[in-house]
Amino acid sequence: MIALAAIERLLAEDAPSGDLTTTALGIGDAPARMAFRARDAMVPAGLDIAVRLVQAAGGTARLHGRDGTPAKPGDLLLTASGTAAALHRAWKSAQTLVEIASGIASATAAVAQAAAAVDPKVRVACTRKTVPGARFLSQLAVRAGGGILHRHGLSETILVFAEHRAFLPDLDLAGLAARLRAAEPEKSIAVEVHDVDAAIAAAAAGFDTVQLEKFAPEAVAAVAAAYAGLARAPLIAAAGGISPDNAAAYVAAGAGLLVTSWPYTARPRDVAVTLGPA
Amino acid sequence: MIALAAIERLLAEDAPSGDLTTTALGIGDAPARMAFRARDAMVPAGLDIAVRLVQAAGGTARLHGRDGTPAKPGDLLLTASGTAAALHRAWKSAQTLVEIASGIASATAAVAQAAAAVDPKVRVACTRKTVPGARFLSQLAVRAGGGILHRHGLSETILVFAEHRAFLPDLDLAGLAARLRAAEPEKSIAVEVHDVDAAIAAAAAGFDTVQLEKFAPEAVAAVAAAYAGLARAPLIAAAGGISPDNAAAYVAAGAGLLVTSWPYTARPRDVAVTLGPA
Amino acid sequence: MIALAAIERLLAEDAPSGDLTTTALGIGDAPARMAFRARDAMVPAGLDIAVRLVQAAGGTARLHGRDGTPAKPGDLLLTASGTAAALHRAWKSAQTLVEIASGIASATAAVAQAAAAVDPKVRVACTRKTVPGARFLSQLAVRAGGGILHRHGLSETILVFAEHRAFLPDLDLAGLAARLRAAEPEKSIAVEVHDVDAAIAAAAAGFDTVQLEKFAPEAVAAVAAAYAGLARAPLIAAAGGISPDNAAAYVAAGAGLLVTSWPYTARPRDVAVTLGPA
Amino acid sequence: MIALAAIERLLAEDAPSGDLTTTALGIGDAPARMAFRARDAMVPAGLDIAVRLVQAAGGTARLHGRDGTPAKPGDLLLTASGTAAALHRAWKSAQTLVEIASGIASATAAVAQAAAAVDPKVRVACTRKTVPGARFLSQLAVRAGGGILHRHGLSETILVFAEHRAFLPDLDLAGLAARLRAAEPEKSIAVEVHDVDAAIAAAAAGFDTVQLEKFAPEAVAAVAAAYAGLARAPLIAAAGGISPDNAAAYVAAGAGLLVTSWPYTARPRDVAVTLGPA
Amino acid sequence: MIALAAIERLLAEDAPSGDLTTTALGIGDAPARMAFRARDAMVPAGLDIAVRLVQAAGGTARLHGRDGTPAKPGDLLLTASGTAAALHRAWKSAQTLVEIASGIASATAAVAQAAAAVDPKVRVACTRKTVPGARFLSQLAVRAGGGILHRHGLSETILVFAEHRAFLPDLDLAGLAARLRAAEPEKSIAVEVHDVDAAIAAAAAGFDTVQLEKFAPEAVAAVAAAYAGLARAPLIAAAGGISPDNAAAYVAAGAGLLVTSWPYTARPRDVAVTLGPA
Amino acid sequence: MIALAAIERLLAEDAPSGDLTTTALGIGDAPARMAFRARDAMVPAGLDIAVRLVQAAGGTARLHGRDGTPAKPGDLLLTASGTAAALHRAWKSAQTLVEIASGIASATAAVAQAAAAVDPKVRVACTRKTVPGARFLSQLAVRAGGGILHRHGLSETILVFAEHRAFLPDLDLAGLAARLRAAEPEKSIAVEVHDVDAAIAAAAAGFDTVQLEKFAPEAVAAVAAAYAGLARAPLIAAAGGISPDNAAAYVAAGAGLLVTSWPYTARPRDVAVTLGPA
Repeated sequence: MIALAAIERLLAEDAPSGDLTTTALGIGDAPARMAFRARDAMVPAGLDIAVRLVQAAGGTARLHGRDGTPAKPGDLLLTASGTAAALHRAWKSAQTLVEIASGIASATAAVAQAAAAVDPKVRVACTRKTVPGARFLSQLAVRAGGGILHRHGLSETILVFAEHRAFLPDLDLAGLAARLRAAEPEKSIAVEVHDVDAAIAAAAAGFDTVQLEKFAPEAVAAVAAAYAGLARAPLIAAAGGISPDNAAAYVAAGAGLLVTSWPYTARPRDVAVTLGPA
Repeated sequence: MIALAAIERLLAEDAPSGDLTTTALGIGDAPARMAFRARDAMVPAGLDIAVRLVQAAGGTARLHGRDGTPAKPGDLLLTASGTAAALHRAWKSAQTLVEIASGIASATAAVAQAAAAVDPKVRVACTRKTVPGARFLSQLAVRAGGGILHRHGLSETILVFAEHRAFLPDLDLAGLAARLRAAEPEKSIAVEVHDVDAAIAAAAAGFDTVQLEKFAPEAVAAVAAAYAGLARAPLIAAAGGISPDNAAAYVAAGAGLLVTSWPYTARPRDVAVTLGPA
Repeated sequence: MIALAAIERLLAEDAPSGDLTTTALGIGDAPARMAFRARDAMVPAGLDIAVRLVQAAGGTARLHGRDGTPAKPGDLLLTASGTAAALHRAWKSAQTLVEIASGIASATAAVAQAAAAVDPKVRVACTRKTVPGARFLSQLAVRAGGGILHRHGLSETILVFAEHRAFLPDLDLAGLAARLRAAEPEKSIAVEVHDVDAAIAAAAAGFDTVQLEKFAPEAVAAVAAAYAGLARAPLIAAAGGISPDNAAAYVAAGAGLLVTSWPYTARPRDVAVTLGPA
Repeated sequence: MIALAAIERLLAEDAPSGDLTTTALGIGDAPARMAFRARDAMVPAGLDIAVRLVQAAGGTARLHGRDGTPAKPGDLLLTASGTAAALHRAWKSAQTLVEIASGIASATAAVAQAAAAVDPKVRVACTRKTVPGARFLSQLAVRAGGGILHRHGLSETILVFAEHRAFLPDLDLAGLAARLRAAEPEKSIAVEVHDVDAAIAAAAAGFDTVQLEKFAPEAVAAVAAAYAGLARAPLIAAAGGISPDNAAAYVAAGAGLLVTSWPYTARPRDVAVTLGPA
Repeated sequence: MIALAAIERLLAEDAPSGDLTTTALGIGDAPARMAFRARDAMVPAGLDIAVRLVQAAGGTARLHGRDGTPAKPGDLLLTASGTAAALHRAWKSAQTLVEIASGIASATAAVAQAAAAVDPKVRVACTRKTVPGARFLSQLAVRAGGGILHRHGLSETILVFAEHRAFLPDLDLAGLAARLRAAEPEKSIAVEVHDVDAAIAAAAAGFDTVQLEKFAPEAVAAVAAAYAGLARAPLIAAAGGISPDNAAAYVAAGAGLLVTSWPYTARPRDVAVTLGPA
Repeated sequence: MIALAAIERLLAEDAPSGDLTTTALGIGDAPARMAFRARDAMVPAGLDIAVRLVQAAGGTARLHGRDGTPAKPGDLLLTASGTAAALHRAWKSAQTLVEIASGIASATAAVAQAAAAVDPKVRVACTRKTVPGARFLSQLAVRAGGGILHRHGLSETILVFAEHRAFLPDLDLAGLAARLRAAEPEKSIAVEVHDVDAAIAAAAAGFDTVQLEKFAPEAVAAVAAAYAGLARAPLIAAAGGISPDNAAAYVAAGAGLLVTSWPYTARPRDVAVTLGPA
């Protein structure tokens, strides 16, 4: 779904006039082929964009793997053909993109699997804290890894932070919720809280989602216990420091959703590339 | 040095129509102030861009820290003022950007310090393998961390990979070097090699830089020993898996330059933000 | 909140090299001033953008009115000064923009006032069906007119149309709702229905919002009656052909929200401009 | 003739990451087809752009109608096929665009037909007062409706307003015309006038076109009578409030051209869309 | 009138990350100043853009010369101050731009002066054949040199070439003119001709401008003689190979306008730059 | 390698809404064909971009010549087909682009041939002083003409000017070289000098390239003589006023590289176009 203009910007960022080494060696017109294989086990992502990078550089490419379908070491992901000039131009841009996106996807999948081991209904939602300039790629990778998106951005969802409440010191949570429902009756409303009492008050106030920021699993459990008797309990979203190591504990404690930024700076997954004469 | 159009794109990516929560609460016109402080020790980066994000959102901002000057936990980095609408719009975009850039800068500094402990003349050069769409930010952060840039991209430097040589199977390293010198007499020429013998041949062929890909420190030492007697030895660039853990060993072995992508996906450094009524 | 790049695009669309008449008459350097006044009664909108158009053309401007604050005929909205070249370049672009945006804002206000006369809690939400290329301006005008935005777009809200259900012929509304909750637990879920029975089923299925497409007010009343006894009734959103003429009837019938595209092609409101030597 | 970058911007404005409802329902990969039919009688416009929107979303499309060729209710305009994800992404953007453009085209045609009923040689020229951001679409729709474009913008045509003359208080119309001819000998020169005497003076001064702003038909007739005996009479352009209701009267009175902004905010024409499994 | 986005693109084209030499020398923060002086006699152009380039690089600048006002060798044109990083970044971009634009302006002025020596009423119109990507700059330089613009582009003027007539083999010039008047009654209509007979026929057909392509001055004189007795003779535009060397001859022969592309590839005029510590 | 967005910008610059003459004549739908032939002997350049301009306008095109392969007068370069609207829209944009690019390529080739007549190993490097906005096209044309690129820009090469040294008054050339090597060990380092003594000092200091600015050939010869005995002499780059007239003299004097901006404003080479019904 990425625009051609964005694809062309990625290519131009790395190789505005092509690969000078290829030009200087005089090999640009030679027919060439290229293959991407998973070196690590991974959940690949960004493969469609890699195909389009090759095309934008003047080559052709074909998918062998698929975003979101786990690959074993050695699995073929993508093949391409074209002139040496085209493939050398696109090579590292495409490889780096797939490696980084697959890192994010694989990390998301790791959190999701840890959660699912306890309760397969609990989803992992990744935040807005993407690397600046790489939001689209990051979101695509989260989807490939089985995650969902917490918030695309600020303009179409409602999540009250303490930094909002500071401007309304006289309004309690029930007052906040009422004001938000009146202003935006179609929207789900969420609030971030920092302790169990606030979480309980948020439920009473009628929030749809209560986001528990940096709660220990025990504190999440206390909230879940308090919500147990409610006719309509809010969604419990655990946020702050969620990773594969603690995801199961949070789910076991009663979280209904895990919110995390952890995958966005995951180490890339290695892709082995062969590139040579056709 | 980032263009206003890029600043505006970053803001629009996160908040095309501002912060809906602020709008729905009706607090947008309230005068507000915001401060960024280092929560972790860090080499901050991206502070100038954060200032411009605040300005583009309609606020004003002032630097207290400086890109590249280490900050202790609690150090003030940036203050801002404006309407609640402006500051809520810019807040997380600016915070996330500084956190991620400071992560890269701090990681670069960690590699650089490990290298400098052995030989202060050895520089750390970060590669082209930046997160797609975030090249400018990544490069700025590398500079803030005391690193240099290996290659901006493909179009103005020469580095021969095996994937180039595959198209010229009959040409040895001396032939390659001659062809490159003839084609681009002003350029420094570099070649990536995978074993000690090739490194020695590359020196004989007259390459300016020989990039040792995934050599163990011992193999680097063997190359350094072989180069010791040369009238004009190439620069020894060690690449592949360089991190703060092994940087000293590579320098001790005789590397003249460390080439790494490791900082680009460093974990962000935490920035504490206060945002409230002015 | 509009980007400078967008402001510059608007100017360039109309006057890429300035006003040729001004150039040909040789009057470009003369000091000039300009004033915008409401000719019709109106809810003005787009005034901030008009100021920025004048600035981008090289002049200066000052607000006298304010987006969303009703103006009487003759009220001063904006004054500007600069060279004749600057003001002639910006004049009609700024005037047309304010006239069209004020048309949308005034039309939105007319629907909102008709609704509020019956129940001040009922909001008017304008749709995604903005003039292509003019979404931002249209949304800003809706806000100025006291309306809210139904959906920014497709990527962050959930609204099930029959055209979605056609791909899941075996799934009833309860099944749809369950699937959506599982997939996107944080989101409010809405469904468009075309008859009263479907509206009742949608409530039973647990949708948060039920959008009644082209229902007569009587049919809306039937839905409202059916929802009366529910522990947690969905929001009733009346959509399709809503205008100032029928808004009151829909609210009286029990609609909790009015959804309309009607304001987007409202006739512009006239702005009287004076432009001459300073 | 619209650029791909513009097409992609339109899609991204509405669905930066696709249709979330489609994604959440898990139906994105299903093969789908879509058809657009005229619900109202209309002069369709924007069909080529709709095709390109579908293509940019990843589907394929085929024209059945043609911009500018009148369609009866029920006439097929366009068919498309692709995945459900592709067609749901493009659907409403394409539909809204065709509905709005066809509204403009049909309104233009209505004015043109009213004029042609009296004198088929009289053209309808639409102004620069397009919805900001939608100039290209509006102009294309005017052409489809049989209209012509009065001025693309300010930079390549000459039309003197009173707001220009205010800077040259000592120059009469003959002096203005002479100055314009000297400055831009290749250009047609036009002047806007507000009363019959000025219209007569403009003819004597040698203007090619005299634009009568908000003249009653009787006043137009007076101008036409005054011009009757001239060796080379200017083109009489009637402007200000021209609509299908009064177009015939203006032509009968002697206008040689009708200038209007009226079609730009015409109500959209309805397009019926079917979208479902292939 | 150039957009900031265009200014930033020019800077980024040359120095995406600033001047590496400045960075490597560690002098970027030093306060610096810069001055531009005319080395050759010239009609300067592009000075305003040079100021904006300096500003976009982070410095400040002040005009001493003015676009279109002739400068003698040694005349000060522009001064700037800022950090060495800012001024080194902008220096050559700004200098090259002023040198090339001043070359075009000076060349235009040379043609204009040659024409004016014979008849000061004859204008020099430069064509659409600008260097691709540099149209705005070229047009600005033509204006600075006292020229006018023949056609901004194809979309708002009418000029019939033989390549148009080839599609209407049965239509004579009178038929063409009638068709154009009917289609676009407000436009001036022009035709390119290749011999004297066609020029005479074009006048009889009623064209406003007759463009004589590659006529010798004697042939222009023959046309002028034939037009002498006409009640309303077309403008005679001489085109094709016009330069300062033959401009006077064409004007003496009776050309009313000279049309030329000659200035667009004029040799740059030298600007002397001093840049050093403040 | 030029992005589609850039191609579309070039078309839009000249014909945002197509060719009005074609539209007004009503010939837009007629099938048409077009051919480009070399009128002058030339080294053609820009042919691939011309093909893409035709495609972007809606036509199809085929190459008959090839960038860099010399063409004789009359040689066919490119043929195209499509509607008259498409071909008339692209015609002059494509023709002008090829004419100007071929002018640059042919001029580069003239310098290169003059140099090669003396020493075929000496390359001609064209500078950064391209027409603003036309860098990509200029560089492509230089390559087609057999030249190389001196510096893409400032951000990835090192060349010390006096204007840098002014900030380090206490540092001699050896100190400068040492500082640059320490800062950027992978880069080739160059310095511009203005007299023979400085050139000799630069060699002693260890610079890789010494750029002799506006040296007479005799002075170049003096430098070459001084370098003759060195173990590792720098590359001698002669710059400033290099043209086909003096290239041989500079090479004969011992220059190892010629650096020039001369081709960038070369007179265009004529391309003959035929365009008519298919």
